[in-house]
Amino acid sequence: MASLSIHSKKHKVAVVGSGNWGTTIAKVVAENVQAHSDLFEQEIQMWVYEEDYQIPKDSKHYDAGSALSTKPQKLTQLINGLHENVKYLPGIALPKNIVANPDVADTVKGSTILIFNLPHQFIGRVCDGLRGKVIPYARGISCIKGVSVSDQGCELFSESIGKKLNIYCGALSGANIANEVALEKWCETTIAYDPPAMDSKQPTPAGSPSASSADLPSLQKSESKSMKLAALPAEYPPLNHANVRTLFHRPYFHVRMVKDVAGVSLGGALKNIVALAAGFVDGLGWGDNAKSAVIRIGILEEVKFGMQFFSHTCRSETFTEESCGVADIITSCSGGRNFRCAKMAVKEGKPIGEIEERELNGQKLQGTSTAYEVHSFLKAMAMEKEFPLFEAVYNILEGNNKPEDIPKLVEAHSTDDV
Amino acid sequence: MASLSIHSKKHKVAVVGSGNWGTTIAKVVAENVQAHSDLFEQEIQMWVYEEDYQIPKDSKHYDAGSALSTKPQKLTQLINGLHENVKYLPGIALPKNIVANPDVADTVKGSTILIFNLPHQFIGRVCDGLRGKVIPYARGISCIKGVSVSDQGCELFSESIGKKLNIYCGALSGANIANEVALEKWCETTIAYDPPAMDSKQPTPAGSPSASSADLPSLQKSESKSMKLAALPAEYPPLNHANVRTLFHRPYFHVRMVKDVAGVSLGGALKNIVALAAGFVDGLGWGDNAKSAVIRIGILEEVKFGMQFFSHTCRSETFTEESCGVADIITSCSGGRNFRCAKMAVKEGKPIGEIEERELNGQKLQGTSTAYEVHSFLKAMAMEKEFPLFEAVYNILEGNNKPEDIPKLVEAHSTDDV
Repeated sequence: MASLSIHSKKHKVAVVGSGNWGTTIAKVVAENVQAHSDLFEQEIQMWVYEEDYQIPKDSKHYDAGSALSTKPQKLTQLINGLHENVKYLPGIALPKNIVANPDVADTVKGSTILIFNLPHQFIGRVCDGLRGKVIPYARGISCIKGVSVSDQGCELFSESIGKKLNIYCGALSGANIANEVALEKWCETTIAYDPPAMDSKQPTPAGSPSASSADLPSLQKSESKSMKLAALPAEYPPLNHANVRTLFHRPYFHVRMVKDVAGVSLGGALKNIVALAAGFVDGLGWGDNAKSAVIRIGILEEVKFGMQFFSHTCRSETFTEESCGVADIITSCSGGRNFRCAKMAVKEGKPIGEIEERELNGQKLQGTSTAYEVHSFLKAMAMEKEFPLFEAVYNILEGNNKPEDIPKLVEAHSTDDV
Repeated sequence: MASLSIHSKKHKVAVVGSGNWGTTIAKVVAENVQAHSDLFEQEIQMWVYEEDYQIPKDSKHYDAGSALSTKPQKLTQLINGLHENVKYLPGIALPKNIVANPDVADTVKGSTILIFNLPHQFIGRVCDGLRGKVIPYARGISCIKGVSVSDQGCELFSESIGKKLNIYCGALSGANIANEVALEKWCETTIAYDPPAMDSKQPTPAGSPSASSADLPSLQKSESKSMKLAALPAEYPPLNHANVRTLFHRPYFHVRMVKDVAGVSLGGALKNIVALAAGFVDGLGWGDNAKSAVIRIGILEEVKFGMQFFSHTCRSETFTEESCGVADIITSCSGGRNFRCAKMAVKEGKPIGEIEERELNGQKLQGTSTAYEVHSFLKAMAMEKEFPLFEAVYNILEGNNKPEDIPKLVEAHSTDDV
């Protein structure tokens, strides 16, 4: 339990991003700061990429007599006036302590907890705009799914953010479809958070020199030797697992805390390749046994990828036991878009690109790009043979193999070492 | 690779049981003994519980001019004449080296490998009939799903067989729907096999005294201290993981070998409780996230059950990484009968017993009886609180809780220990 009296300051929380998932997470934490006023300040600033939006005539918010309805309005004004993100999360009432802010630097001002939830291609630009504007001892949580993989290497988004802003950044990922969470349908999530030990011990008084790199966890050690993180002043409640969990955990959104940032981030990226494979075998009509075999093999290739390339920090349990691993992969292989499009492609005998164009309204499948990126990375590491399912998906997309080949392609690797 | 020349004898394989799954496994091993005549004798004896069967008029085997068709025939005669189990696996051509045999003692005569695949309630009676008729150094594999749980304790079927016949008995379980395997649709399975070390080392000549109990694996150590197992004579190829896998592995039936007999057996029993829970939340319309959360929690309760009550031998990876664990639970929570009936019960607002009666033609749901048995066992151990999902299912069946309570019931246990 958090102690109530010994900390003179409370944490201020900002959410950077306000799409479908960003707004949903803002709702979750806005509810929790209300329920835990001993730990958190009551206002949640939420950064909104400003745009004009015209309320549609069929919206319950449309009022022909109101200026808000008759012409396009600033999205921030609509959100703050209606307490609803009418564009990206329509129909969901937001707590009134969420304040939409079009100025990203102003959004994070004075905040000790920064939640990043925006499309990954904007991370660089947004962080550039935040440099020098962030409290040095702030801590981040990235809710951005995926990792950046190429033949150059493999970088976690939480790492990119942490390095750009010189703060520690953890990661949140799980079997979470934004709309279902927004509707308060029950699910679970995983938060990986492993900041410098000084945060929970709080041995250094406010304003004292930051800890040496010897105190940093291994991920930070390996990735940012030159980074010096500022200690959280003792006036604040510690940002330990219990308090971070308190900020995110709801009766409908169960949080498990882990330390493995790499594993949590990788699960959200690699599952999309597995979902394509599951769609391929399901499209062949091979039934639930084959699909669950693909999922099982996919989980083990995720484990192998993590242990191979993030051996400092990765734990196999993150993939096999947590929501960000096994649960997210199951959900993605049940009805996710990668699964559905791959299945349609096989059933209709059409290239997946054609299905993507027809079904996704110009959006792109994450699974296909991740399959190519991971292949390119594995090839650069000369390790394609160690990941037969990931490679099978790449080769099926490339036309080098057929979905029917999957059992043969994974077979040689299915023996144990006895 | 098995060496071809140094062993003067080959293994003879018998299948005890010939239902849907028994006949399917007989087909699998009959194909493999043909492909590996260096290791195995070519004939597979299959015990059939003899009964009269009348070929239906719409069967392709019905021939008005043939005596086989015009009146009821012995099932063994039909199987051996038509090379098809017309009653329990109709439409699937069986290899001609399968010989149906109505005499169980004659079936196992001279066999060094006994595959048990019959309804669990017949194990006692059949083994009683086999006592003294089995080669002392024979090894068994039980394909019978489930375990025997009550407030008296928890016994594996493979253990019951092993003790009754004084032989070592392993277990096979996985995400395997018999009809799909029979149709050669691809899936995976897990075989747990951990016989006394003497089998692979073969240090003792044929007919020498059997190994001391100090050589037995820990499961046997704990369960059958008084058991003395006979060593496999050196004339036979060793029954190590490679050769056991060779007997079962097919291009459409991928085998992974493990040593954890308890874990493999428990997975096949406990998954049915989880499938009920998955059906309950799906019946509420909570979506794929909630279902995958139930599966994740279910896997961890399986792990806990195994580690708690079979700590000598159980490994968490058996549940989290193998077909008998994670894959079987996913399949069962996709379209299995426990899942389907639980979902219907919630959607229609009816007791599950009523759905069971309507949907299952007099058959019983495994999940409900397992939930009651496991509750009774946990209560006797005063450990109900450690298994909130298993208990939730029991309490929902009992009317003490509603499906909507599941998140609340599992919530207190969803924190980690940080």
